[in-house]
Amino acid sequence: MKLNFWQQYPLVKDDLQIVNQLIAKKIEVNDPKLKSALLQMANNGGKYLRPALLLLFSKENSTTIADERLLKLAASIEVLHTATLIHDDIIDDSPKRRGQVSIQSAFGKDVAVYAGDLLFTVFFDLIADALYASPYLKVNAQMMRQILNGEIGQMNARFDTEQSFLTYLRNINGKTAAIFSLACQEGAYFSEADRRQVALAKRIGQNIGLSFQMLDDILDYSDGKNLNKPVMEDLATGVYSLPLLMVLQEHKAELMPYLAKKEQMTAADMEAVKQLVLKYGGVTKAKALAEKFIQKALDQTSQLPASQKRDLLEKLIKRLLKKTN
Amino acid sequence: MKLNFWQQYPLVKDDLQIVNQLIAKKIEVNDPKLKSALLQMANNGGKYLRPALLLLFSKENSTTIADERLLKLAASIEVLHTATLIHDDIIDDSPKRRGQVSIQSAFGKDVAVYAGDLLFTVFFDLIADALYASPYLKVNAQMMRQILNGEIGQMNARFDTEQSFLTYLRNINGKTAAIFSLACQEGAYFSEADRRQVALAKRIGQNIGLSFQMLDDILDYSDGKNLNKPVMEDLATGVYSLPLLMVLQEHKAELMPYLAKKEQMTAADMEAVKQLVLKYGGVTKAKALAEKFIQKALDQTSQLPASQKRDLLEKLIKRLLKKTN
Repeated sequence: MKLNFWQQYPLVKDDLQIVNQLIAKKIEVNDPKLKSALLQMANNGGKYLRPALLLLFSKENSTTIADERLLKLAASIEVLHTATLIHDDIIDDSPKRRGQVSIQSAFGKDVAVYAGDLLFTVFFDLIADALYASPYLKVNAQMMRQILNGEIGQMNARFDTEQSFLTYLRNINGKTAAIFSLACQEGAYFSEADRRQVALAKRIGQNIGLSFQMLDDILDYSDGKNLNKPVMEDLATGVYSLPLLMVLQEHKAELMPYLAKKEQMTAADMEAVKQLVLKYGGVTKAKALAEKFIQKALDQTSQLPASQKRDLLEKLIKRLLKKTN
Repeated sequence: MKLNFWQQYPLVKDDLQIVNQLIAKKIEVNDPKLKSALLQMANNGGKYLRPALLLLFSKENSTTIADERLLKLAASIEVLHTATLIHDDIIDDSPKRRGQVSIQSAFGKDVAVYAGDLLFTVFFDLIADALYASPYLKVNAQMMRQILNGEIGQMNARFDTEQSFLTYLRNINGKTAAIFSLACQEGAYFSEADRRQVALAKRIGQNIGLSFQMLDDILDYSDGKNLNKPVMEDLATGVYSLPLLMVLQEHKAELMPYLAKKEQMTAADMEAVKQLVLKYGGVTKAKALAEKFIQKALDQTSQLPASQKRDLLEKLIKRLLKKTN
């Protein structure tokens, strides 16, 4: 932050220092390079004009530090501003921002989309803190952040033939399962379920989400005649999904000649990869794994009190995840 | 929505219909084509699996409609999911989504960035409604939407030599002034100012924001030796800012040969436009207009009760907006 600008404004000078620290503390991004770029943007960035105005309007003559709520609101408004700058730079192809290399120029437009989104979650999180609202405002912001960290994780793992199964699991846990667990958890919490039931709902949702994503990955290896999704789309963009990961380490020698072509893979290359994955049982192994998570979801569902809900949920899980109708 | 999927689930079938309507009602986007694409995505889109799970977890055996709070949370979770899909499609270059042309494919990646962001505001708005929190959660969501509608408005006006001054004003009112007015308004509101003071703070912020943007536009026409921003950046991306708009209609014959080249304008073309704008007084006229808004901000500031805050605010406005140090 260009703190010098505020030297002659004792009314807000010290507050802005704290606002800066609050923002830095809230930037929780798994990707260390992106995190440091965002921190740099927060620290060396603008004049903090918008939070300064907010603080100025909260005061009369006092130079004592503003209360925590106001400091958080001030932080939120600077974070929101920064998020929109990052997205603007994508649109404008801007190479620079505040004298530094812009996020889109340093990391590419793809990262910049998610980086802006991540800051929206920080904005939301700060607002939730400031306004002492339902704890679920914060839960929502944190879940939004999980989704985006999962997306960024998946993006970073592109074309990485050394990625572990754990990386895969962590990424789909964010990008897909988080929203399922939030859905189940919120339904339970806001209909006055007790704490144990809410925790159970959350875990059921997570397991539905994980297996949902695994089955979606498997679909990529099916014939997909009636699917809306172009077959092998993931592979074309360097996302190595579950069936491939299941056989990649063991059959690297055979698979690498195709994978090494990266974006240059032809339709024939992708078909060859698909056939190898099928040949070595990647789809079968992926299905077996998905099955474990489905079974977990069903076991947990059976722990719910007997009700129409429980019956329907069981039917739904089977229908969705076993692809029966 | 693929409602058929839920025919056999009476526990949530009717609720999902209402969730769908709630979402459709909340998609407030000025751009009519983008609005209809987002509505289509909401209406013909997915299975509403995540809101269905939320609702399912809120029930035991009752088929009566869930309460409004749960319906809004269910809507929020589907909107969040849709927002992330739109951004994912940018990263993946996906031509299709749910069997329809994807937003990024139909409108371009730039629109898709803001379209996803707009849905984040809808998400936030629904959460705010559902959780009966401080009215400022909703104010924040609405302001976030104003920013994004301003950005989309500016994007749509690119290379439009017929755009009115009113369009310009409306767009900068969204993309820049909204966050300034929110800052001033929040500072006042959360330090227990009375309603009149809060409204005054909001207007002061708006006028600071409007003149701030106008002066920023004018900077594009300065020599800009020590500026971080590449000179004439706006022009290169088809954003016709205030100085140019001030002379465009009157001197179209001279300006059009350059402007008609659009993205193909060379550095020499841009320099020629700059010189014409300067020659016909575009910068002077823009400065005069900005001056009016600065004066408004100062007049309104003088209506605040006498205090250090008021004095500092006056100094700040003069320093920032008259570019004195």
